[in-house]
Amino acid sequence: MSSQAGYAYERLADELTRQVRAGMLAAGERIPSVRTMSERHGVSISTVLQAYRRLEALRLIEARPKSGFYVLAERAHRIPAPRPSKPVQAPTRVTTSDLMDAIVAASSDPHLVPLGAAVPDPALLPLRALARHMGSVLRDDPSGASTYGAPHGMLPLRRELAKREWNAGLSVAPDDLLVTCGAAEGLNLAIRATTEPGDVVAVESPAFFGTLQAIEASGRRALEIPTCPVNGIDVDALEDALGPHDVRACIVTPNFHNPLGSLVPDADKERLVRVLGAREIPLIEDDTFAELYFEDHQPASLRRWDTEGFVIRVGSLSKTLAPGYRIGWMVPGPRFEASVRRHKLASTVANATPPQLAVARYLASGRYDDHLRRLRRVLRDNVARMRAEVAARFPEGTRLSRPRGGFLLWVRLPDGVDALALHRRARERGISVSPGPIFSPSGGFRHCLRLSAGHLWSERTEWALDELAEMIGAG
Amino acid sequence: MSSQAGYAYERLADELTRQVRAGMLAAGERIPSVRTMSERHGVSISTVLQAYRRLEALRLIEARPKSGFYVLAERAHRIPAPRPSKPVQAPTRVTTSDLMDAIVAASSDPHLVPLGAAVPDPALLPLRALARHMGSVLRDDPSGASTYGAPHGMLPLRRELAKREWNAGLSVAPDDLLVTCGAAEGLNLAIRATTEPGDVVAVESPAFFGTLQAIEASGRRALEIPTCPVNGIDVDALEDALGPHDVRACIVTPNFHNPLGSLVPDADKERLVRVLGAREIPLIEDDTFAELYFEDHQPASLRRWDTEGFVIRVGSLSKTLAPGYRIGWMVPGPRFEASVRRHKLASTVANATPPQLAVARYLASGRYDDHLRRLRRVLRDNVARMRAEVAARFPEGTRLSRPRGGFLLWVRLPDGVDALALHRRARERGISVSPGPIFSPSGGFRHCLRLSAGHLWSERTEWALDELAEMIGAG
Repeated sequence: MSSQAGYAYERLADELTRQVRAGMLAAGERIPSVRTMSERHGVSISTVLQAYRRLEALRLIEARPKSGFYVLAERAHRIPAPRPSKPVQAPTRVTTSDLMDAIVAASSDPHLVPLGAAVPDPALLPLRALARHMGSVLRDDPSGASTYGAPHGMLPLRRELAKREWNAGLSVAPDDLLVTCGAAEGLNLAIRATTEPGDVVAVESPAFFGTLQAIEASGRRALEIPTCPVNGIDVDALEDALGPHDVRACIVTPNFHNPLGSLVPDADKERLVRVLGAREIPLIEDDTFAELYFEDHQPASLRRWDTEGFVIRVGSLSKTLAPGYRIGWMVPGPRFEASVRRHKLASTVANATPPQLAVARYLASGRYDDHLRRLRRVLRDNVARMRAEVAARFPEGTRLSRPRGGFLLWVRLPDGVDALALHRRARERGISVSPGPIFSPSGGFRHCLRLSAGHLWSERTEWALDELAEMIGAG
Repeated sequence: MSSQAGYAYERLADELTRQVRAGMLAAGERIPSVRTMSERHGVSISTVLQAYRRLEALRLIEARPKSGFYVLAERAHRIPAPRPSKPVQAPTRVTTSDLMDAIVAASSDPHLVPLGAAVPDPALLPLRALARHMGSVLRDDPSGASTYGAPHGMLPLRRELAKREWNAGLSVAPDDLLVTCGAAEGLNLAIRATTEPGDVVAVESPAFFGTLQAIEASGRRALEIPTCPVNGIDVDALEDALGPHDVRACIVTPNFHNPLGSLVPDADKERLVRVLGAREIPLIEDDTFAELYFEDHQPASLRRWDTEGFVIRVGSLSKTLAPGYRIGWMVPGPRFEASVRRHKLASTVANATPPQLAVARYLASGRYDDHLRRLRRVLRDNVARMRAEVAARFPEGTRLSRPRGGFLLWVRLPDGVDALALHRRARERGISVSPGPIFSPSGGFRHCLRLSAGHLWSERTEWALDELAEMIGAG
């Protein structure tokens, strides 16, 4: 039984989900009756029924009239993962076209069914609690809360963020940490602090398009490194690329990669840090999704293996707390700290003060972990459900990622389907999706799609998946 | 009589100040008795007394026991302005040293008497009203106020800012305008949107050190252009510099320059825009202090004369409303709009949403103009008073700017005095000042000092000026 807090029916549903996924309950098998289950687990009939309804919603079981509940032959279990990527082996000057900008803009158009933007549903975030804390910090000290803060961020917030770094396997002091305008600014500062214009920066293939935009804006070049959709960056391939290419920095999302959802195993993390550290190449870690793990605990930061001080860590609260507060953070380490601070001062001077103090109070209230537990459960269910629904609808030849955290799905469509054309048609029908090419500076992933399962599941979601399936089927 | 609103005694004091400054009441002259003045202006005895006390505080008049009030032989009237600057005539790669960073950091140390930072006293800002609006926007729509806004800013704020551009002589639509994290981000985006690494950017000599930091952070080079402490940038000198140097952009603060307080006359503004426009050189206008005018109206933006679309306008509410809300704006014009937006998206994605909405409501409430009127009056008095106090204390050979707006004084100390050493000693005694060299990439202005008169006048201010005078006197 899961040790996580929550309602009894949720714990039961989690346990059954695990059994189904582990194959302990096979497809077609009848699961114990509601009464049997109630007695076995010492919970009420209604608790069991609630748990079964949840599994039904996730398409893990189905009710057969007058017979009971059966484990579904879930296509999502059999649908293959996308293949490892094989990007071009030369640095690319990044030029995101106007088309790309339009795509990114459309992905947050509130009128579209939001399968495009990597944003959690506002209904899943503790925004009223945050608003109350904002009110109280401004009432308590309107002047302190409204004047310039230190460029590296307000101390109360740095204290709370530093404490939370324990969860990433790190021991960080408030002064080691710098508050940024989301992970976006963190990536920018890290790139500017470690490289010069024209330098080659190694990125994953596919890569978060915000990373590519930062590389473009700073005039660096991107070298795409192959990835595996399960284990993330291919460290061997990276090492091979360091021979022919003068790589000056490397940006990696080890935990629940955007868009892959992959998780780099600890052994690979250690090798990654060692390979780059030995060559004194800065390793920029984008750890935006780490708190949204589906398994037992938050995976470790690359800094845990960093003995040489070449890992710059970048984090964000935008996916878990409040995108609009623009709170991210960095742990640059002593080697890059002065330069990162100088770039922060030169670029935005400091984050807005009131959101920093409001978030600090919210974190200090101790409610964040409860919130995260609930959020993770919803997102994990949403991802499972979207996998099942996509598997049930999309044509033969579709491949599908199996994310281990976060809320993003990476879909490899059958060969004939052009993702940019699909994006356009979907938009006309009122659906936003993120087409593969925006995740590659060399225009790769023409047949791929990123879908977000971050929003509350609704009939609109199912309608949108129906529509997408129809468009894909029509070629 | 002044047409500005305010108490009767303030209007009277303003009128008398004007007469003294215009020489209509000469030094040593006895001014009319309280009774005479009361009858002449149809105001009460106590109103006249309040006005006279104010003039006393500004060191414009003094009370002589049993004799009346006399116009002071104000040294501030006779103290000369600093000479026009003569910077080195070659582009400089900007490298603000750690020392410079430490100086900038110290200038906002709350334990020091704050003559260093260019920040208005929080007591002068409507922070409680802003806090109330913040509370109401978050209560009314916690989800809308807490999620990602558009990269170019929330529409309600852009609407209010666009309306206010009328005061700068401009007709601007909300969509022409982009919200930034203070003027700092605006300057950064403008530099990155118009130039490449290594390019030469013309700046004023002296220049706001934030501008120099942005040039450094983006790897551009600075070419210093001579200025006049009264009329700002020397357009002839700029034109001369365009021959030998491949200038790719020019950054100018036409209205109440930081640190000079100078105001470029309209005819020069027009020439400046024409000279650069004819050569298709982008002209970046930093208009941060424009609303803090001491005379009748806000001076015009350079964009008023911009027919070719080469002026990028940058503004900020940090000096007039709430530094910690980090609200600035840009009007990039159609030529640079797409590039500026792309750089904004790549650097911080968007400003934090709640401060934008709170400021929008505050501006819509119509109280901002009342606030500005009061703020301008206090700052103008503070500047006059600081000029008088400096003139009375600092040794022969001191030169002093006569700002026409803002709240900064530029002091040229006698030749022997090293501003960096003075800065260090002042800091040891608990006083922050901004030494001249931070305003020059080539290390100029060794004998200059910027003093801020933005804080409420107090005995600490006078004590600090005493201390500074003593240190300067001691060489």
